[in-house]
Amino acid sequence: MRAEIISVGTELLLGQIVNTNAQYLSRKLGELGIDVFFISCVGDNESRLIDALNTATRRAEIIIITGGLGPTMDDITKETVGNLLKLPFSLHQESLERIENYFYRVGRKMQSSNRKQAEFPEGAIILQNDMGTAPGCIIENEDKIYILLPGPPRELGPMFEAKAIPYLQKNNKGTLVSKVLRLIGIGESTAEELVKDILIEQSNPTVAPLAGDGEVSFRITAKSESKDKCMDMISEAEGKLRSRLGKFIYGTDDDNIEIVVSRILLQKGIKIVTAESCTGGMVANMLTDNPGVSCAFNSGYIAYSNAAKNRILGISDEGLAKYGAVSDWSAREMALAALKASDADVAVSTTGYAGPEGENVGLVYIGVTDGFRTIVKEVRLIGERKRIKNLAAKYALNEVRLFIMGK
Amino acid sequence: MRAEIISVGTELLLGQIVNTNAQYLSRKLGELGIDVFFISCVGDNESRLIDALNTATRRAEIIIITGGLGPTMDDITKETVGNLLKLPFSLHQESLERIENYFYRVGRKMQSSNRKQAEFPEGAIILQNDMGTAPGCIIENEDKIYILLPGPPRELGPMFEAKAIPYLQKNNKGTLVSKVLRLIGIGESTAEELVKDILIEQSNPTVAPLAGDGEVSFRITAKSESKDKCMDMISEAEGKLRSRLGKFIYGTDDDNIEIVVSRILLQKGIKIVTAESCTGGMVANMLTDNPGVSCAFNSGYIAYSNAAKNRILGISDEGLAKYGAVSDWSAREMALAALKASDADVAVSTTGYAGPEGENVGLVYIGVTDGFRTIVKEVRLIGERKRIKNLAAKYALNEVRLFIMGK
Repeated sequence: MRAEIISVGTELLLGQIVNTNAQYLSRKLGELGIDVFFISCVGDNESRLIDALNTATRRAEIIIITGGLGPTMDDITKETVGNLLKLPFSLHQESLERIENYFYRVGRKMQSSNRKQAEFPEGAIILQNDMGTAPGCIIENEDKIYILLPGPPRELGPMFEAKAIPYLQKNNKGTLVSKVLRLIGIGESTAEELVKDILIEQSNPTVAPLAGDGEVSFRITAKSESKDKCMDMISEAEGKLRSRLGKFIYGTDDDNIEIVVSRILLQKGIKIVTAESCTGGMVANMLTDNPGVSCAFNSGYIAYSNAAKNRILGISDEGLAKYGAVSDWSAREMALAALKASDADVAVSTTGYAGPEGENVGLVYIGVTDGFRTIVKEVRLIGERKRIKNLAAKYALNEVRLFIMGK
Repeated sequence: MRAEIISVGTELLLGQIVNTNAQYLSRKLGELGIDVFFISCVGDNESRLIDALNTATRRAEIIIITGGLGPTMDDITKETVGNLLKLPFSLHQESLERIENYFYRVGRKMQSSNRKQAEFPEGAIILQNDMGTAPGCIIENEDKIYILLPGPPRELGPMFEAKAIPYLQKNNKGTLVSKVLRLIGIGESTAEELVKDILIEQSNPTVAPLAGDGEVSFRITAKSESKDKCMDMISEAEGKLRSRLGKFIYGTDDDNIEIVVSRILLQKGIKIVTAESCTGGMVANMLTDNPGVSCAFNSGYIAYSNAAKNRILGISDEGLAKYGAVSDWSAREMALAALKASDADVAVSTTGYAGPEGENVGLVYIGVTDGFRTIVKEVRLIGERKRIKNLAAKYALNEVRLFIMGK
């Protein structure tokens, strides 16, 4: 079964809101094994909505339309679909009572315009709205299914979940399951080169590379008659990828590097202290995005200038003059000094050039130490200032992960 | 002129990412006075991309296609557009050199697959990519304009801004100018209530409230035959808004609170030190997003636990036991201690409950001191953990602004 999503609303075309409904629905439809081949957005305009509906009807069996079910003159979705399919409208008494009841409950007066929200094309299956006034509906016409849902995400989600999914499950066979492997420390093209043959030979499950935010991911997607079967298929493909890319893989699915590192620290009962120069507090900020991290992280230093490195961490002015603030030596000294000043078991440091100006923009040294063993990693990062800070912080956390895992 | 946006990428149809590019482009095109009537998303699939291209070509004069310009086999946008328009491809030497140079700079090996990124349909205007390897391009064909942009937002934005906007401005008549006023410390509905009559009576320029990320903004948009005329119209509306909302307005347009505070600190030659608990490094991280801030910010402390507040900043255990780590007293002591330990002129501190659990989630104290005058501000913030951290950091910087401006 192929689905197409049409999001209706001029605010989308003006860029006033981002289309999170389309993302939500795509993900849910994927989980149901329904392919989404197109998503489109159109404004609150009858002729253009008809164009979008005709285009979708030509390309898909299931057409999901979100938005435009409100009481105002701008809201034309139900009327336009009904007219296009040449269906007469009639009042749905139960819906009218629910809407009247809704206004009674919130203590507001129902406007006459709300009455049209209770009128539906003949034969429609009504989807009641537990979160607002606009009911949705399903219209089966020839071999096509039209599902009309309200625009506000907090109304759309519960309605889709409770009413549309059971309907779609009855009409569909097969399941789609995905798993994402997350990598740090390798570029997209290099990663792809290492597994090129796997990418080419795989058709089910498919393996697709994704790049974003300084990371590379591979998405494995399996389609079969059951979830268990999908999981087995994914597991086999994952094994192949791990045998080639294992050391770069830090997590899966919704993991990010700060969650993974916090989890490792908490599991192993290790406390960490941060000593940041070029990342300016970002490593600490990322760690503290995790609730409960306070058992593993309780203090950090930001030593942005040479003077601060000396005053806060006691890094010697002579050494800074000799080796430079951005150096293997400096990263090592910063990590050791922070460890000494704190009650932590491990320290991580960053020092580098975040830019935008200068010859060595992107050169960053990351130090990790537990007092016995100290490593310093030199990395070269590309991009504008915020990206270099962000990447340096991620790479630093990844070095902590590798250090602790003893790799 | 009518534009249509086509976003290419299977990850969009699987709901793995949300289509922020479409929002960004719609907003920018609106500012240029170019109408966007349709947005569509399609996967990395040739026949379906052709369908989307044909549909868009029928409906719009400008077709903007994002994504699918990478080096991998999945990336087929440029090839598909070129083939559809029956244009031969040739190698663009300058682009090849830029890509080779990019790999040289990051110290990685260029893969042979990257070479196709330097091949373009005949007659294309090449848009160089300063943030990655994939160049974009503009293809003028009959009376249609095709603009191909890379998918990663951090590459798309700068390229659109620097290369595509000047091109589009030459091709478009009538001017639309916008100005955004940025507020902190007031809610959307309260702000709107204060200027309700202005919002209703304005038609050109329009005044529209926008909320996002804990801030409220008002966008003033004027349309006329010249830029100067637009500026005059905006200036009049801005005056009206400032007379009512002045004290909440911290900046305009692309300002953010960290840029504004850094600017004030640098202009006045004031050095700041940070002492953060609940914001966990975020205040320092925001400040150091600005290049050149090192003259105004050189060190910061993150004291996440009571023990760390005592050890790093010398906050007395007795006081912490008596008043609590989240208190007016604690914020005051943290700011004073950080000021004393540093060579800074002003100190800012944060302490609060970021959540997600506990009775007082969102309660945050912000301290600012110059050693002579100390203020502590209590704020109550709503939302999940990351949002509370983010808001607390912004409010803290805003308190620094108000403190220095002597308000």
